[in-house]
Amino acid sequence: MRLRNKPWAEDFINAHPEIVIPNPEEQKGKWNSVFNNENPLHIEVGTGKGQFITGMAKQNPDINYIGIELYDSVIVSALENALEAQPLPNLRLLKVNGADLAKYFQKNDVHRVYLNFSDPWPKIRHAKRRLTHEGFLKLYESILVDNAEVHFKTDNRGLFEYSLTSMSAYGMLLTYVSLDLHANMPEDNIMTEYEERFSAKGQPIYRLEARFLSNK
Amino acid sequence: MRLRNKPWAEDFINAHPEIVIPNPEEQKGKWNSVFNNENPLHIEVGTGKGQFITGMAKQNPDINYIGIELYDSVIVSALENALEAQPLPNLRLLKVNGADLAKYFQKNDVHRVYLNFSDPWPKIRHAKRRLTHEGFLKLYESILVDNAEVHFKTDNRGLFEYSLTSMSAYGMLLTYVSLDLHANMPEDNIMTEYEERFSAKGQPIYRLEARFLSNK
Ligand SMILES: C[S@@+](CC[C@H](N)C(=O)[O-])C[C@H]1O[C@@H](n2cnc3c(N)ncnc32)[C@H](O)[C@@H]1O
Ligand SMILES: C[S@@+](CC[C@H](N)C(=O)[O-])C[C@H]1O[C@@H](n2cnc3c(N)ncnc32)[C@H](O)[C@@H]1O
Repeated sequence: MRLRNKPWAEDFINAHPEIVIPNPEEQKGKWNSVFNNENPLHIEVGTGKGQFITGMAKQNPDINYIGIELYDSVIVSALENALEAQPLPNLRLLKVNGADLAKYFQKNDVHRVYLNFSDPWPKIRHAKRRLTHEGFLKLYESILVDNAEVHFKTDNRGLFEYSLTSMSAYGMLLTYVSLDLHANMPEDNIMTEYEERFSAKGQPIYRLEARFLSNK
Repeated sequence: MRLRNKPWAEDFINAHPEIVIPNPEEQKGKWNSVFNNENPLHIEVGTGKGQFITGMAKQNPDINYIGIELYDSVIVSALENALEAQPLPNLRLLKVNGADLAKYFQKNDVHRVYLNFSDPWPKIRHAKRRLTHEGFLKLYESILVDNAEVHFKTDNRGLFEYSLTSMSAYGMLLTYVSLDLHANMPEDNIMTEYEERFSAKGQPIYRLEARFLSNK
């Protein structure tokens, strides 16, 4: 994601606390009160400009969604998307680092994790930064309900190969794998920005669903 | 595999009992005596014309290999390959159905199973015939040593996707996945006939290694 300098970004984010939650650590264990309902909560780590999470929130009004993005300059686009789609009472954004999820969520707060076109970190010495590294899987498991799923899409072959073996080694069950998502596009597929870009180039899009097993 | 009518095939096979083992059920539990050594035994189910298993036997003289093929008209080519490569004391062929492996092998007889470009059986109602169906995985496990691996190559996307989830559901550990084997060709890769044909067309070759876990 190219980072343009957006000096107004911080002010714009701060002006919309109804969408980009300030002090999210205060909501730990009580996210239902943020959404004012008991619906399940799905989060996306590395939301980018928010096309996916906004689309999901529109498609599934009975699920709560939180998009998590590290950078001001990127999350402003997600915020703009969310504002355009108003009213979307089941969508919130968090401007935090996915590595710190445990600060904001506790066990059973979250029902599903989405990862889309996550940074590949191709060098072995950066493997720990991959969002499907054992350390992140452990983090997701620590905030998810039992038997919850991670859904992951990417165009990056190396990251996808790595993720299959990393999840298997963690003891997760692979319940779905597509090695060319757009060859048999599921009707309810919501495209991400990166997905539009890479599929337009003719690259295959990989997708998996993997489940944490509580009785490992 | 196109089946040409080869009336001489049966006679030719019968004339080479030193390679195509007659009455293999009599060797159950004592395959070491066939090879006259204590080396591990690796088998390939659906050997076709035998290029892979012959190449493996040449490359790894300290491993015993058995290629298993259902059809006379196909296994004759594997026999010809084996004869041309003589002496190859660590290679044998079996003209039997892979579904009947338990007739010829018992627990701990086999140390690894290779599957290459197995028939895809794309229709759901034929799923049981896929060589990575749960029923076959159970069969392999019943003749393999503990923690043994299945190594699988194919060009068929649907079969590969199926195999990843089938093996995961069986409780196998995915230890290696390549979604484009020829993009980073391993030095010791031995090409099969189908692999040569499909990679020449530019299709990606998929490959995985999966391990049975004894402490499931
Ligand atoms: C390659 S982009 C993909 C964006 C979007 N998911 C898509 O598919 O179009 C990856 C995004 O993840 C964000 N990101 C990377 N690491 C992150 C982390 N540890 N926590 C939160 N966001 C992260 C990046 O800032 C970037 O916006
Ligand atoms: C598509 S060909 C691939 C041949 C070779 N492995 C290759 O990669 O070039 C599949 C082969 O498996 C054999 N085969 C299929 N089902 C089998 C079974 N149940 N037992 C033994 N051989 C089988 C077929 O006769 C055929 O020769």
